[in-house]
Amino acid sequence: MSLPVSPLAPAAFPQMPALTGVTFAAHACGIRYKNRDDLLLMVLPANTTAAGVFTRSKCPSAPVDWCREALKKGKARARAVLVNAGNANAFTGEVGAASVARTVAKAAEVIGCAPEHVFVSSTGTIGEPLPDARITENLDTVFAKAMAGGDESGDWQKAAAAIMTTDTFPKGATRQATIDGVTVTINGIAKGSGMIAPDMATMLSYVVTDAALPADVLQALLTKATDKTFNCITVDSDTSTSDTLLLFATGTAGNKPVKDAADKRLKAFKAALTEVLLDLAQQVARDGEGASKFIEVRVTGAESARAAKRIAMTIADSPLVKTAIAGEDANWGRIVMAVGKAGEKADRDRLAIRIGGVEVAAKGRAVEGYDETPVVAHMKGKEIVLEVDIGLGKGKATVWTCDLTHGYIDINGSYRT
Amino acid sequence: MSLPVSPLAPAAFPQMPALTGVTFAAHACGIRYKNRDDLLLMVLPANTTAAGVFTRSKCPSAPVDWCREALKKGKARARAVLVNAGNANAFTGEVGAASVARTVAKAAEVIGCAPEHVFVSSTGTIGEPLPDARITENLDTVFAKAMAGGDESGDWQKAAAAIMTTDTFPKGATRQATIDGVTVTINGIAKGSGMIAPDMATMLSYVVTDAALPADVLQALLTKATDKTFNCITVDSDTSTSDTLLLFATGTAGNKPVKDAADKRLKAFKAALTEVLLDLAQQVARDGEGASKFIEVRVTGAESARAAKRIAMTIADSPLVKTAIAGEDANWGRIVMAVGKAGEKADRDRLAIRIGGVEVAAKGRAVEGYDETPVVAHMKGKEIVLEVDIGLGKGKATVWTCDLTHGYIDINGSYRT
Repeated sequence: MSLPVSPLAPAAFPQMPALTGVTFAAHACGIRYKNRDDLLLMVLPANTTAAGVFTRSKCPSAPVDWCREALKKGKARARAVLVNAGNANAFTGEVGAASVARTVAKAAEVIGCAPEHVFVSSTGTIGEPLPDARITENLDTVFAKAMAGGDESGDWQKAAAAIMTTDTFPKGATRQATIDGVTVTINGIAKGSGMIAPDMATMLSYVVTDAALPADVLQALLTKATDKTFNCITVDSDTSTSDTLLLFATGTAGNKPVKDAADKRLKAFKAALTEVLLDLAQQVARDGEGASKFIEVRVTGAESARAAKRIAMTIADSPLVKTAIAGEDANWGRIVMAVGKAGEKADRDRLAIRIGGVEVAAKGRAVEGYDETPVVAHMKGKEIVLEVDIGLGKGKATVWTCDLTHGYIDINGSYRT
Repeated sequence: MSLPVSPLAPAAFPQMPALTGVTFAAHACGIRYKNRDDLLLMVLPANTTAAGVFTRSKCPSAPVDWCREALKKGKARARAVLVNAGNANAFTGEVGAASVARTVAKAAEVIGCAPEHVFVSSTGTIGEPLPDARITENLDTVFAKAMAGGDESGDWQKAAAAIMTTDTFPKGATRQATIDGVTVTINGIAKGSGMIAPDMATMLSYVVTDAALPADVLQALLTKATDKTFNCITVDSDTSTSDTLLLFATGTAGNKPVKDAADKRLKAFKAALTEVLLDLAQQVARDGEGASKFIEVRVTGAESARAAKRIAMTIADSPLVKTAIAGEDANWGRIVMAVGKAGEKADRDRLAIRIGGVEVAAKGRAVEGYDETPVVAHMKGKEIVLEVDIGLGKGKATVWTCDLTHGYIDINGSYRT
């Protein structure tokens, strides 16, 4: 099963600067896939701080349970990240937790660190016990590879490719900023394309900066930036049991640590972090299963920012809106329907809708005689912009998604085996 | 555009007993469709009481606004129902409200009743002004037809067909019960197949009983029965601007009016009403756009009935669950995913899942070596039953939906024109 690369993929994987002391290796362990890397080990320097954001699912996977606990127990320090593709180790009961414990113990032994400084993720089939021996028996080799700085070392593209499941392209992003005059780098990779597509998919992302930042500051920055980025994308409204976003700060850039997340010296860093997360998040939406169009939904004039986001997400999640866009139909009636169903305050007679910048409806009705030509041309493109003004207040939000096509049904309606 | 009849349709339209004084006519007004009935006028006897349940959309159509207001202003009395197909008169601003006013005024004049005793619904394209003259100029003829007791009179199937949009079959249901020893009949028709499918669809239902029931009792019974029936179905999670369910009681059966909805003498009537609504609601799900399988989702063991319903609806609305069923894949991992995303209390390690009566997962993991043969056979059938026990409490709920197929994309991704 090899899917064609999404027509919405970026032209190329970005050039990522090396980060001092950060080394990694990908390896083919045969967990499920044959003849491809399916394990990523990233080793981080001592004193690296960590922050995490996880799925809101009430049925999280065993690795998510572990990461949440490790962040607390290990006081938000990290020495390694271990990610496998092909098996999610989700809904595997006690067996799943035992797998995590064995994997983490072996990694900690090889690296020489506390188990709670090892973060793990698994993505792939749900409900099947993870064959963790295939990971542990390879860990000596993988660690040696990482430390040798062999051909994989520093190769972020290879790292991003090792954690793919139904993704059609590896996802990476990088930005630089200064803190107190010191240049720092932020590198990130991600995977994800549907929520748990043909039994495998999930959103995982690992972001590393060489900035020196206390763990509590890191967590505050990550939580805030996630809200405007990864929490603003949707493919099919489904939520994985395994979503994991981890941010690590190694401190090797040598800036003076800033102790308050609100400190103005972090302004440029915050902006760069948000850009990295947004870039990665949008790549996930661009790789949405079966996607043929990338959709930006901008809502303005809502009662509050929260209301705006809920309305925007309701539009982005509506199967009727998404199928209309797949059919290149500027069907704004469905946008009205979605606004109405969102449950937030709205006044039909104040709504205004723009498609590709052209106002098609205002004051509760169609704009008479609007020029359809640019709208039709916009709908035939790959990048669709929908704007809705609620006309009530100042709340605004922007979210991103993709269309709903036959490809989605093909990918998700097929047998697992 | 003529869609093939859903493979999930009932064998035949039911035989509906005549109701004294209830007369109606269907007519081809050419509102949008050519050469088919697109208008239904139902005339009800004097002193008929009325109750209604409407869309929760914050952007309701002009006819929904009217019906809500008419129920209040007319003290929940009704003399007529007028429904057109082809144009929803939704998101039409003041022009839409004016259309309703003209239509209602003409109907009231023809029938000789107060305007607020005329209930109207429109279903079809959103955002286009309703050509109401095509209705008003035909109303004398339609009323004469209804009163003549011509060939349409009493033909509930013709009435149900006149209000169809993307429906592939007309929907009707009938039951009888006794109140205080007097036999009463409940007849209902409905339309609906997606939420506002290719710009047209919506759920409309009109139910008439010859029982004598005060309006407040009627409203209480309707609200309660709706919660277990029409509010337990979903096709694509999208909500129409026009959903309308009206219940009328003519009183011609001659039972002694019961003044309290909690009165035990209404027990059989309540059960029969719920059966009629459930029958109609399930027919709507069976006619879901592109549906190839009818799905019953039963949730037990939730913290509360409300939690159970929310979990059940989340499963029923999940594109990943629905595409898996379309693919005949007993993919219970996606059911776990949906339970997790519902936001209600759940403990992964207490969940149990049955598909077609066979336990496939329990205590947070797959049931080892369960017999797949009956499960595979069940998935190949047209009637799918998913059972989820949350293992926490006594809350339970059952909801109904259909699968998500290429047919849905075909119907909803096509151009309006």
